[in-house]
Amino acid sequence: MTVRKFRQLGLIGCGLMGGSFALALKKADLVDRVIGYSASHRTRTRALELGVIDAIADSAAAAASGSDLVLLAVPVGATPGTLQAIAGHLSLATLLMDVGSTKSDVVAAARANLNERLPCFVPAHPITGKEVAGVEHAEASLYDNCLSIITPIESCGADQLVAARELWQRLGCRLHEMSPESHDDAFALVSHLPHLLAFAYVNGLAGQPANRDYLSLAGPGFRDFSRIAASDPAIWRDILLANRTEVLKHASHFRAALLQLEQSLQQDDGEALRLLIEHASQTRGAWSPGGLPQDV
Amino acid sequence: MTVRKFRQLGLIGCGLMGGSFALALKKADLVDRVIGYSASHRTRTRALELGVIDAIADSAAAAASGSDLVLLAVPVGATPGTLQAIAGHLSLATLLMDVGSTKSDVVAAARANLNERLPCFVPAHPITGKEVAGVEHAEASLYDNCLSIITPIESCGADQLVAARELWQRLGCRLHEMSPESHDDAFALVSHLPHLLAFAYVNGLAGQPANRDYLSLAGPGFRDFSRIAASDPAIWRDILLANRTEVLKHASHFRAALLQLEQSLQQDDGEALRLLIEHASQTRGAWSPGGLPQDV
Repeated sequence: MTVRKFRQLGLIGCGLMGGSFALALKKADLVDRVIGYSASHRTRTRALELGVIDAIADSAAAAASGSDLVLLAVPVGATPGTLQAIAGHLSLATLLMDVGSTKSDVVAAARANLNERLPCFVPAHPITGKEVAGVEHAEASLYDNCLSIITPIESCGADQLVAARELWQRLGCRLHEMSPESHDDAFALVSHLPHLLAFAYVNGLAGQPANRDYLSLAGPGFRDFSRIAASDPAIWRDILLANRTEVLKHASHFRAALLQLEQSLQQDDGEALRLLIEHASQTRGAWSPGGLPQDV
Repeated sequence: MTVRKFRQLGLIGCGLMGGSFALALKKADLVDRVIGYSASHRTRTRALELGVIDAIADSAAAAASGSDLVLLAVPVGATPGTLQAIAGHLSLATLLMDVGSTKSDVVAAARANLNERLPCFVPAHPITGKEVAGVEHAEASLYDNCLSIITPIESCGADQLVAARELWQRLGCRLHEMSPESHDDAFALVSHLPHLLAFAYVNGLAGQPANRDYLSLAGPGFRDFSRIAASDPAIWRDILLANRTEVLKHASHFRAALLQLEQSLQQDDGEALRLLIEHASQTRGAWSPGGLPQDV
């Protein structure tokens, strides 16, 4: 396979995801030069100091100008404004991708803002991450062996789609393609809803008078169940809002399932309770990770 | 410190928790002989073959007879019947403990069944365990460095209480004492409610038509959040039923906290949503395990 090497990556958002992408591209010798922009002055300066980027752009548009690869690695909520800012600065042959956790909203923002540059855009969601955010934690190995999801739309340029597939595979990712709508429904269920429930659980707990004493007794069950409740508030506000229709739909299914369990408890119906737990236990027991080594 | 060595452990329930207790006692040279009973013929035979016990008792009463230490390691629901069966077979100086995940119900069962042998009983809950059940998985190290909770009641014999404290510490446990009621309220919140929510989440997910496809996309967030949903149905039926008042109370607090999050989503109120997530994120971010190396 002839591997395309990019002349310049325009990185918009030099945090953990974007910074790691730049490092991975450099390590795989897939890019000559990285020019980066972050809204935060500190972040873009640190990215330069750390060798994550080779030059600082003073705007998203400046990062996009003259780049044959542009990666959008900003919180989902900042995507529409960024797309609008760069639309007039993309070349016809540029591959533009994002790494957002929701896809329908990003696709809608692309359709609304990219105009004749819409073919440049291939929506992507690499399933990776870390507990900690920020360019300081960026590392070339973040995308190693992860699942990367592409949600092609009919407007995707043929060359861009081929280049996107090749790029993620060259970074060591397994590739999966699905529609933006299926993606958002799936991740509402397997990622966004668990976050919502973990936030609710910890907030309910925090409201208890004895919560400090009780927390000192908590063990590994608590640790694992509540781990994702420590996630970044701004990032998760954006994800949950962007995908709220699907998240609320799955939350209502969860409520119904919880009610069944509560009713069996209220009615002291041990056999009904056991069957409900057995259903959950067998479903979860049969699951094994699809080789996803990093965080959603 | 003079360490008391027990002449005979009467082990009632030779599964993971009971079997590991016997092995740990032997390893610490705290017992001369272990006689064991399990309702399952296969379990007691395997326990003998594996050297977990030195002799098989053909009933719970026979395991208690002549033992100066008796450990009840049966599902919580089997406790009342077992206590009734052994009450007439305990010596005055015997130390009787359980390892159940709920304490108020066990204390009530002891009060109702032990009669003049009630002073023998010191309720205990070592915070340890494994994903897998059964005597085959028993190991002497299961109690190493774990937190062991004792919930003394006014009827506890002074000698028994001293012996119980010494025993858990000699097994390498950190000791914590609290009332049965506080114990059950605390564990309803930090252990039983998370299990209930994880069961509900997985059952809600299992009801979705595309759940098989979606599960193949699930990553570490899902893995950790849902891990406890794979727990043993009979054991968790008993725990949730035994502690249902506290569990249902905390479940209602959880529902209120979830409703707040859902409402901020429905109202598209990003700032309210961010504040709710931030509250959870800070609470969970500030938590660190109290050195509990094993599962609740």
